[in-house]
Parts: sequence; C-alpha cells; structure tokens
Amino acid sequence: MSMASTANPLYASLFSKTTVKPSLSKPSNSSELFLRVQNPNAVSLRSSFLCSSSVELIKGGNSVFSSSRVRSRSMICASSAQVMDQSPIKTECKIPTIVEVDLGNRSYPIYIGSGLLDQPELLQRHVHGKRVLVVTNNTVAPLYLDKVVDALTRGNPNVSVESVILPDGEKYKDMETLMKAFDKAIESRLDRRCTFVALGGGVIGDMCGYAAAAYLRGVNFIQIPTTVMAQVDSSVGGKTGINHRLGKNLIGAFYQPQCVLIDTNTLNTLPDRELASGLAEVIKYGLIRDAEFFEWQEKNMKALLARDPNALAYAIKRSCENKAEVVSLDEKESGLRATLNLGHTFGHAIETGFGYGQWLHGEAVAAGTVMAVDMSYRLGWIDDSIVKRVHNILQEAKLPTVPPETMTVEMFKSIMAVDKKVADGLLRLILLKGPLGNCVFTGDYDRKALDETLHAFCKS
Amino acid sequence: MSMASTANPLYASLFSKTTVKPSLSKPSNSSELFLRVQNPNAVSLRSSFLCSSSVELIKGGNSVFSSSRVRSRSMICASSAQVMDQSPIKTECKIPTIVEVDLGNRSYPIYIGSGLLDQPELLQRHVHGKRVLVVTNNTVAPLYLDKVVDALTRGNPNVSVESVILPDGEKYKDMETLMKAFDKAIESRLDRRCTFVALGGGVIGDMCGYAAAAYLRGVNFIQIPTTVMAQVDSSVGGKTGINHRLGKNLIGAFYQPQCVLIDTNTLNTLPDRELASGLAEVIKYGLIRDAEFFEWQEKNMKALLARDPNALAYAIKRSCENKAEVVSLDEKESGLRATLNLGHTFGHAIETGFGYGQWLHGEAVAAGTVMAVDMSYRLGWIDDSIVKRVHNILQEAKLPTVPPETMTVEMFKSIMAVDKKVADGLLRLILLKGPLGNCVFTGDYDRKALDETLHAFCKS
Repeated sequence: MSMASTANPLYASLFSKTTVKPSLSKPSNSSELFLRVQNPNAVSLRSSFLCSSSVELIKGGNSVFSSSRVRSRSMICASSAQVMDQSPIKTECKIPTIVEVDLGNRSYPIYIGSGLLDQPELLQRHVHGKRVLVVTNNTVAPLYLDKVVDALTRGNPNVSVESVILPDGEKYKDMETLMKAFDKAIESRLDRRCTFVALGGGVIGDMCGYAAAAYLRGVNFIQIPTTVMAQVDSSVGGKTGINHRLGKNLIGAFYQPQCVLIDTNTLNTLPDRELASGLAEVIKYGLIRDAEFFEWQEKNMKALLARDPNALAYAIKRSCENKAEVVSLDEKESGLRATLNLGHTFGHAIETGFGYGQWLHGEAVAAGTVMAVDMSYRLGWIDDSIVKRVHNILQEAKLPTVPPETMTVEMFKSIMAVDKKVADGLLRLILLKGPLGNCVFTGDYDRKALDETLHAFCKS
Repeated sequence: MSMASTANPLYASLFSKTTVKPSLSKPSNSSELFLRVQNPNAVSLRSSFLCSSSVELIKGGNSVFSSSRVRSRSMICASSAQVMDQSPIKTECKIPTIVEVDLGNRSYPIYIGSGLLDQPELLQRHVHGKRVLVVTNNTVAPLYLDKVVDALTRGNPNVSVESVILPDGEKYKDMETLMKAFDKAIESRLDRRCTFVALGGGVIGDMCGYAAAAYLRGVNFIQIPTTVMAQVDSSVGGKTGINHRLGKNLIGAFYQPQCVLIDTNTLNTLPDRELASGLAEVIKYGLIRDAEFFEWQEKNMKALLARDPNALAYAIKRSCENKAEVVSLDEKESGLRATLNLGHTFGHAIETGFGYGQWLHGEAVAAGTVMAVDMSYRLGWIDDSIVKRVHNILQEAKLPTVPPETMTVEMFKSIMAVDKKVADGLLRLILLKGPLGNCVFTGDYDRKALDETLHAFCKS
C-alpha cells in the first residue's frame, strides 16, 4: 500500500483499505510536487521538503486541494466525501488537519478539525480489540459521552464500550481516583487487547493515559481532548501521571497514544475561564520557540477569546506542530523537551501550595511565566520590551500575572525543591534568553536573581 | 575502551576504569579463542560462538581462568584481585558469573556469586546520581540492609542512602503499600538522577521496580534479590507491578533494571519453605525449554534442598540464562515470554482465591504446574511418563501437587477470566506438548480438557 520511494525524500502513506492505484510524479522542478491518486478513501502526504512547495490533490482532472504552504512535519488529508465533492478543502469543514508526532514505530497522528466525532471511521481505525473503556468526568460525560460511544460503535457491532466517570478537577488527579479506572477495567474483564479512551481535559488525559500505561502493564489508548489546554498541550507527547500531595505529576509514565482526536466543536461548551487557561500554553510556544506565532497571537488574541473557529483551529494546529516537533526530538525530556515547561516550575508551586484546583493549570502557568520572564530580565538575558509584551498578552487573555497573595517565598522554595527538573540538588529552570522566541533550560544562573524574583512577587 | 572488532563475532567489553592495553588474538582454528589483557581490573567476554570453544584468561604468562564450555549469552568475568592472585577461578569464590540480558541499549548484567555484597565496586558502578533509595521489608532489613548501605557508600562519600521498610508478604503487594515508597522518595526530595534498589524477594522486587518505573516517570533501579524465587525468576526481565484485590500483577510496567546482583550468601538465611517455593520456577525452566536441565534437577534435587552451594549456584545461573534468553527474544510478552508462565494461570487463581500470602507464589505455581501438565495429558499432547516425573520432582522438592481444598471450579474459572493472557475473551494457556522440554502457548485447545482438569482437582 505504500507509495514511498526509498530513493526519494517524499513519503506518502494511504489510510484507505480500498484498492487504489496511485501514480506519483515528481517534476524536475523540485519546488513543485504533485500527488495523484485514483479513488482514494483517504490520502496523506508528508514530506519535510515541502515547506515552500506547492501541493495539489487532483480528482477527475479537477484540483480539489491545493496549498502554497505546508509546514514541515504536517500532513494533509482528504477523505473520500470531499474528494467526491470536488470542492476546495478548507480548515473549517470536516476534513481533519493532521499533525504527525514522529516517534519511529510509535508515531501517531493528531487529527484536528470541527465535527471529527461525527466521523466514526477516524476513531475506529485506531481502536485495537473489541473492548473499549472510556475514561471521562462528570462535567464532560453529559455533553459528549454518548457521542463518543456512538462514534466508537456505529457500523461496528463487535465493539463494546464501558465507561468510568470520575469527579471533575485537578484535586481528584490522585491515586485514589485512578484506582476507580482500574477497578472498572478489571471488573469489566478487559484484556490486553482493549483500548482506553480519554475523553476530557488535561486531568482526564493524564489519568487515563497513566491507567492505560499501567493496566496489565500497558494497553492501547486514544486521546479525545475537550479543552484548549488538552488540545494544545497535554494530550500530545505521552506524558501521563497523577499528583502527589507534595507535588504535581510526580507519579506517572511516558506512554504514547494511538492517536489524538481534536474535535474543535467540543470547545463550544468550554467555559471562558478554561479557554483562557489553555491560551497560556499557546502563548508559551511563541515565547520559547516561535516568535512569528507569538506575533500572530498579539494580533489575534481578541479573535481567540471570541472563539473565532479559524483562529482557534490555527492556534491549535500550530501549537500541536510545535509540541510534536519537540517531542519527536526529545521524547523522554533529556533536554529540549523541558523547555515546554516555561513558567511551569513556578506554576506547579502555585498549584501545589495554593491547593490543587483553586487555580486552573494555565492560570498558574501564566503567573509562573511572568515570574520566569522577570527573572530572565533580572539576569540581563532579555530586554524589557519582551517583559512588557508578555504582560500585555497575558492581561489581554484575562490571565493572572502575579501569584496568589497567600504564596510565600518559602512555599515556592520548598515546593520547587521537589520539581522533576531538579538534578543532584540543583534546580534547573526554563528562562528566556536573547530575542523573542529563544529560551534556555539551565541550572547555571545567579541564585540572587531567583531570590529577587520570589521576593518581588511574594509579600513574605 | 572497546576491544570489539566489527568484523569479528567476538565481542569484548572492559568494565575497568584503569588504562588497559588489550591484545586480542584469534587463532585460525575457530574452536580455540584466546583473550589476553594486561593488568585488567575486570574483563568480560561475550560471544554467541563460544558454546563449545575453549576460553582462557592469561595473566603474566599463567592461565588464571579456563573453561571448556561457556554457554551462549553467558559472560565470564575476572576481578583484579583474582587476576593478581593468578589462582584458578572457581564459581564458589567471589568472582561473579555474569549472565547478560540482551535488550539493545537497555541490556544489563546479572551478577551471580557468593559474597558479592562484599564487593562495593560491583554495585557502585551501576548507581546513577548521588542519592539512593533502598526498598526492602521488615524481614530482610535486619539481615542485609546495613550490608547493602555499606556496599553502596564504602569509599563513596558523595552517595547518600535512604531506605523504606515495607511490611513483608504478598498481601502487602498493593497500591497502599507502594505509596509508602513514593512518600519516602518525595519527602527525601529524590530527583530524576537517583537510583532505587530493591532488596528482598519477588514482592519487593516487583514493587520497587514499579515504583522506579513510575517515580518522576522513571528513575534508575537495581535488583538485589534475596530469595531463590527472585534470583531465578522475578528479578530478571523487567516485569514489575502490584496486585489488585481481583487479580495478581494487574497494575504495573515493563521496566528493566540497571543490573541484578545475586549474592548467593543471602540464601543462608532463607527459610526452607521459601527455598522450595523458588525451586518451582527452576523446575519450570526445565519443563518448558531445557530438558537437560530438568534431568540435572532430578539428579540434584537433594543437593539443592540441602543448600549445596555449587548446586544452587548452577541452578540459579542456568535459570537466569534461560530467562535472559527468553526475555531478550520477547521483552513485552507478545508470545514466547508467556511460556514462562507455565502453571501460573492456575497458580495465580490459587493465590487470589485462597488469599494473597496464604501460599507462597512457588507453592501455587507447583500445584498449577501439575494442573497444566494434567490438562496437557488429557489433550493427548504428552505421555504419562512426563506426568509422573513432574509429580515426583515436585514432591521431592516438598511442593504441593494439588490446589487448596477450598478452591472450587467456579473460583478458578472466574479468577482465570481476568488473567493477562486472556485475549478478546479467549483464555490462552501454557501447556506441555511433545517430548520433555517443549511447550505451547495457545488458546486453541478443547475446553472439555480444561473442565475435566478443574473437576479432577476441585471438590466442587
């Protein structure tokens, strides 16, 4: 089924199970690449050489998809319906954008689009075995559980679905609650060929992922994130786990899903405060590695807060591309991946010290980002224009820019001492350094700057 | 430091940190291989071509080690003291036998020998970072904890050791007890560069290994097994986990140690019943894949029960070689590795149904093995001489050959239904088939035979 030529950097794979007779031509001008297929069900095309090339998908002599810019590591995908339709493919219709997380034989796609839960074949192609356990919470279940069960079972009578509904909130991201998922799986006699599906935000994704990693020493799982936070960050990259009363995410596993399915329609029911919380992570990508994206956010923050579908879809896609690239390069966080934790060491201290669930994760990250940026400035690593721009964009996103008043310097210090980034007693931090879009992950900084930042943001 | 020639199947690695000038000669007669080194601290030699070759280690013109038979995948190792000594190396002295578990970049050695805990450099070379957590239990701690702390810290003042002492017994192999290890690690502020050390039997090894797999999403760990059960089976191969009230080992991870250090002197304090329990797994290796080893056991069971050091050392080494080979070929148990579970599906049902800790694991496995062998015979897959020999050897080892009287057919059926080897509802079993030393892992058997076996061994 592969159309890949080993001698050619262009790689193409077919998801379709129907017989296809692809023909692939590569004109001598390497800036023009064409993919031609006959009667495809779904076609994906991936190349790291397509950055500034034009791509065209042709059906019956008519062009049904064209793009003058495809980002590195991204994929385009057309389902049969739209190819039949011969109408131009746009991001706001049901064609998923696909971002690939490249991890060798554990690679997986992130599908992004509106109404994807109405396309059962997308989900079903990643279900292994005949038994599924949906792990969700009591906020999301009434909204989307039936829809997901339908997507899993429609036209697929062999599959049976169990579900476990956990209480909603960061304070339930603990071992006691996790055991409910194990209990349900064992009582339902799910075996190693089952699939766990995480339906919810970051807490559900982390818990379901960790349950899948540990159940019978590992079963398949799928992420269906329903918050911006989960869609742009936590559902991608395989970090799973639970909190300990002394610190966040201290117990867990690196465990990759089979796929991440992001139906942007699920954001229609997301509270404003949750939406803003997720934007803290979007802003993070701009600051640590994508200045152009940060500038786009500065121009489009109002559209994002107004839930403009195109703006949200673009922000999610570009965030996933950034995350996928970092995870592909450093899955187990030996270095680069740690940079995704800008603001998180301060932020986790806020979440732990102030009480899990008092602030949303992104709210704590926002205040933590301001603190990390403040410290970077005190070290002389960035100029004050960046400090101001970070303040401005977070305020526009209605996110906090200072920690809660009850947080003391001592609380920060004692909680940060158990951060996962401590190595041989040395706390390493992600700090901005240089022009916008650049950061470092380092334990080599003047302790005085950290002290000054903590004292500047805490009353005692 | 490598003496390996890429064109040569012989592979040699030096553990020594001292400067050595190795010279390696390979005579034209390929049945004779010689390794010559100058002033080595420790030398290991590994080759899959050495099965029937002679190996000689020479120091100052004198042969200090020679062997006419080195098993595939085994290694020989000489420490500087013995090389200096120029005395012949024998298995009963402090030179460890090394069995390598070949898992690519996650390969690790199993050291086997008496008095290995008196050789700090052996342990210390596998400690990462400056912080160690020893996980042990209240039976083993009074006997060996001080010795292990000494081995970790002697001449190594930068390393600090914490310990957590769990209650002893299978019934404590649960999440509640596991949390004590996490609590201790977090309260001690251990970071990702720490090392967990499992000191104890199979329960401690499984729990410490799983704690290491999950703590901060994974830290280094070392196994120091102190029971025959752990030394011949559970410490090798990376299966870690805890029990659920509904079934054994249902929550866990595949997570490999840095090394396994087997000091056979620790068996001096092992109760007879624990010794016999471990022999159930030794017998298993003979039945599923090593008829010659089974025959050796038939001849040497009295010596094993009398704790003859040479007999025990040989049984441990040969068991580890069998286990290492199987794990190398099928780490995640997609097929072959499941054969190591001969008797375990019945045995786990006994442990779960009769109550964790009522019978030792090996006792349940022994009765389970008799049941699996009975079923194999009913299927016509083995002749009755094997049935008799299995009965005889287990009885000689003073192991049970029938399940507890309280076990009913229904208990077996309902507990076996949640076994990890169930796939899409079908219970797969390890059964003997053919001559001694052959088995199959299959769901393709007559259900009537299973029913008959259960009814033959249960009153109701």
